[in-house]
Amino acid sequence: MPRLVDHAARRREIIHVTWRLVARHGLDSVTMRDIAAEAGYANGALNRYFAGKDELLQASFEYVFAQTNDRVAAAIGDRRGLEALRAFCLEVLPLDETRVLEARIVVSFWGRTVADDRFAGVNAVALREWRTQVVGWLQEARRAGDVPAAVDADLAAAHLLAFLMGAQTFVVAEEPLLTPHQQRAALDAHLAQISR
Amino acid sequence: MPRLVDHAARRREIIHVTWRLVARHGLDSVTMRDIAAEAGYANGALNRYFAGKDELLQASFEYVFAQTNDRVAAAIGDRRGLEALRAFCLEVLPLDETRVLEARIVVSFWGRTVADDRFAGVNAVALREWRTQVVGWLQEARRAGDVPAAVDADLAAAHLLAFLMGAQTFVVAEEPLLTPHQQRAALDAHLAQISR
Repeated sequence: MPRLVDHAARRREIIHVTWRLVARHGLDSVTMRDIAAEAGYANGALNRYFAGKDELLQASFEYVFAQTNDRVAAAIGDRRGLEALRAFCLEVLPLDETRVLEARIVVSFWGRTVADDRFAGVNAVALREWRTQVVGWLQEARRAGDVPAAVDADLAAAHLLAFLMGAQTFVVAEEPLLTPHQQRAALDAHLAQISR
Repeated sequence: MPRLVDHAARRREIIHVTWRLVARHGLDSVTMRDIAAEAGYANGALNRYFAGKDELLQASFEYVFAQTNDRVAAAIGDRRGLEALRAFCLEVLPLDETRVLEARIVVSFWGRTVADDRFAGVNAVALREWRTQVVGWLQEARRAGDVPAAVDADLAAAHLLAFLMGAQTFVVAEEPLLTPHQQRAALDAHLAQISR
């Protein structure tokens, strides 16, 4: 077993180095050679852990997604309904340096999905998972009487996710279109519109 | 003059071919050779019109932006305030095949902005131009009494643009998260929230 654990830990280390490099320089500029150098491996040695750059990029996107989901689970704790939904949104919005780097990875990755069906599929799975969760929180909120029965949970979930994804695209503009303070204000306006 | 006109017309033709290829296959997969072949030029002949792929990509993004703005101007006509704003949004949302292709170009381009400051600057200029226009329509709507004085036009503009940009990112998911019908419904809910 120690060898297997070791292999998984090494993969995580390499992914972590990759996502930092990609967030800073973009997918196109980062080579397997750069990643090996930054992670302290000889050039060919990464192949034991990842078959190629595409596999590594997919793992990096999935790592960012899993990292966000871990923070979401911790932030939600026992919260349900609208409060859980708000906690989720606050972990996805690019409110601090880590989440800005994550948004840069995600925007870089989206660019690749246009040309690559495998990447498009990975992105679609992640988006659908989030939509299902958001719909679930909205349904809880409806049962608790916090969201009117007239609100279409599927539509409201996709509308809210569009806002969150759009806020991620803003991080690649030179000057952010929404400051962290404005992101929170826009989120509260958005949730107020669903719950009133 | 005919030679100059010719040059500009040729540039437009090449840009048009480029954006169709990029929308279909993504930025990374499309080469200058592909573009030359599709446009009916010998391989080196594109250099008379564009210094390289980056210049051509930037021109393609600006072409999509200008094309959208032309449609916006035509759709708005004499409309002002909220009606003008709604017409703008309907031209930006990926509601038909042309606008889905445009969204694919834009998402591809955003991916490149992470690594390339020149592209990031071009994107920032376009976003700021739209924000200024949206703020202007919201101020008109406020003067007409259609939007409460309490609405922060800068915040509302950026929030609405985030929704529009997020809807663009959805086109790269396999199955769209918002059907055209749902995009319109989400837009109307969004505008109702600003104007009520």
